[in-house]
Amino acid sequence: MISGTAPVSLDALQVGIKPRLNGVREEIRRLVEADFPLIAQVNSHLIRMQGKMFRPTLLLLADSATAPAPDARSLPLAAVVELIHLATLVHDDAVDHSVLRRGMPTINALFSHQVAVIMGDYLYSRAVIELVRLADLEALRVLSRVTNEMTVGEMRQLLAHDPLAFSEDDYDLLIRAKTASLISGACEVGALSGTAAEREAMRQFGEGLGMAFQIIDDLLDFTGDEEATGKPAGLDLREHKVTLPLIHALPKMSAAQRTQVEALMDNPQPNADEISRVVDAVAERGGLEYARERAQGFCERAEAALEAIRPSPARETLRASLTYVLERRR
Amino acid sequence: MISGTAPVSLDALQVGIKPRLNGVREEIRRLVEADFPLIAQVNSHLIRMQGKMFRPTLLLLADSATAPAPDARSLPLAAVVELIHLATLVHDDAVDHSVLRRGMPTINALFSHQVAVIMGDYLYSRAVIELVRLADLEALRVLSRVTNEMTVGEMRQLLAHDPLAFSEDDYDLLIRAKTASLISGACEVGALSGTAAEREAMRQFGEGLGMAFQIIDDLLDFTGDEEATGKPAGLDLREHKVTLPLIHALPKMSAAQRTQVEALMDNPQPNADEISRVVDAVAERGGLEYARERAQGFCERAEAALEAIRPSPARETLRASLTYVLERRR
Repeated sequence: MISGTAPVSLDALQVGIKPRLNGVREEIRRLVEADFPLIAQVNSHLIRMQGKMFRPTLLLLADSATAPAPDARSLPLAAVVELIHLATLVHDDAVDHSVLRRGMPTINALFSHQVAVIMGDYLYSRAVIELVRLADLEALRVLSRVTNEMTVGEMRQLLAHDPLAFSEDDYDLLIRAKTASLISGACEVGALSGTAAEREAMRQFGEGLGMAFQIIDDLLDFTGDEEATGKPAGLDLREHKVTLPLIHALPKMSAAQRTQVEALMDNPQPNADEISRVVDAVAERGGLEYARERAQGFCERAEAALEAIRPSPARETLRASLTYVLERRR
Repeated sequence: MISGTAPVSLDALQVGIKPRLNGVREEIRRLVEADFPLIAQVNSHLIRMQGKMFRPTLLLLADSATAPAPDARSLPLAAVVELIHLATLVHDDAVDHSVLRRGMPTINALFSHQVAVIMGDYLYSRAVIELVRLADLEALRVLSRVTNEMTVGEMRQLLAHDPLAFSEDDYDLLIRAKTASLISGACEVGALSGTAAEREAMRQFGEGLGMAFQIIDDLLDFTGDEEATGKPAGLDLREHKVTLPLIHALPKMSAAQRTQVEALMDNPQPNADEISRVVDAVAERGGLEYARERAQGFCERAEAALEAIRPSPARETLRASLTYVLERRR
């Protein structure tokens, strides 16, 4: 059972693959390299704001858990996956007009909206060029499908602003497309030199893990404190993004609470009080517990998929990554 | 010689490939198809505003001119090239905040800026999925490189706003990346079942044609009337885009004329009088003739490349496309 275990840090998951992760970072630098000064400037900013490398970590662990011998292509493939992730973040920030990401100014804030749109395209086309260089049609098949799914997820996100019209099924479709697809793709691509059964198991593992990852992300928006997450609590509500805790709690709310939700959604600039009243109502009506239970359920399905993978330290680290996702505070 | 020949219409170039072009249109509809209602809406708008299919035309002609037998893959490949073109137009319009394209509202104007950014990503990832389905690594190699070059061209475009700092070499690099790369890529991909020499010849042909195409496009901005081009004359100047006629004319201008140019570039909202005075100065100082001569020179290089292609009606239609590009009025 995953529940009730001690928290696992990302560092702990990465301890056995530190040198390979550094190799992935070098590959990323190689892949984005540009003669053109403006692109080079954006690149060095992107490399400074480099994230937790969660997707490359999963890809490398999936490789270790399934490959007969470590696959030399897994480093550039992990770099490609991180590059696709970066490209989507750059476009997301442009679409959302976000000014901060990981505590640093976004590309659209630091350069311009135009640069952000073009830079996302630049990063994504570089990723495709690298996949072609590797002559890996299977990785291309997985990752082009995933990239397309993510765009559909982004479109769904645009419509996720009316809590009365946005159902739990809509939410599942949204997070599957937006988040679980790439995490699942990273795990599947990591298992490409394994058997077909291992590949399918890793795909399923990644899908469960990815669904849980996004649900916890949305939950942390209700419970997290700014110091840990780097984002003010209730940011999604402030931006009128409807997520699972609210979807679940809304039908159970009192008429007065529902009116508060509606008022918040109608207010272009809701204040901290309005937001904290809705956060409290969501908590009181069980929205947070329900979201945690669903994340737990997805992790259990992911753990079941690991049964098709032969025992190894890497498999156990993949199992531990489920605990990391469930228990993380940021 | 190309110069002095009678104008050639696009219809005339397409007369022998009408049924295949209709096939390309069907392929495009198949490729963009989506369950998600918002994407389906954007798609039907994009299909209504479908353009002149110039790039698919070149690809099909290159195929006819080089393939031992017509290549069944050329229809989906032509659709992919048009899809990449569409994706870049959608992002360009978003980046430029354009409201009209081919006399119809742009995606950003009709839907939103966000929808335009996401939709460009959607179209491009669909194009990659199709190339993977065709299992055509060579086409992927050409078109992923081209797509990346186009993003660099877009970045160069962002900096093309200072006529004193933007040289003719900068202009050449810009239009090569922004326009000639995809036209050249379309011709090269059309010749993939030909010999290596034919493939290289078609690449060179497309590059010359593409350079001329963009130079004439920029020239028409000075000489064209709104009724023919669908755009008001002097739009580039209004948006402070520096193109070849101005680059060439500027050093030859009088001090008074140069002051007019500087005033226009400093004015966020230049009026029609200011624009027409600069247009006149550019014409007086030989900027238009020079641009036409350079376009002619690129067409001659393109025509020379055709010598490596065996004689055929398709080769002669490719030759005629040079006249079309040089003599077009819109």
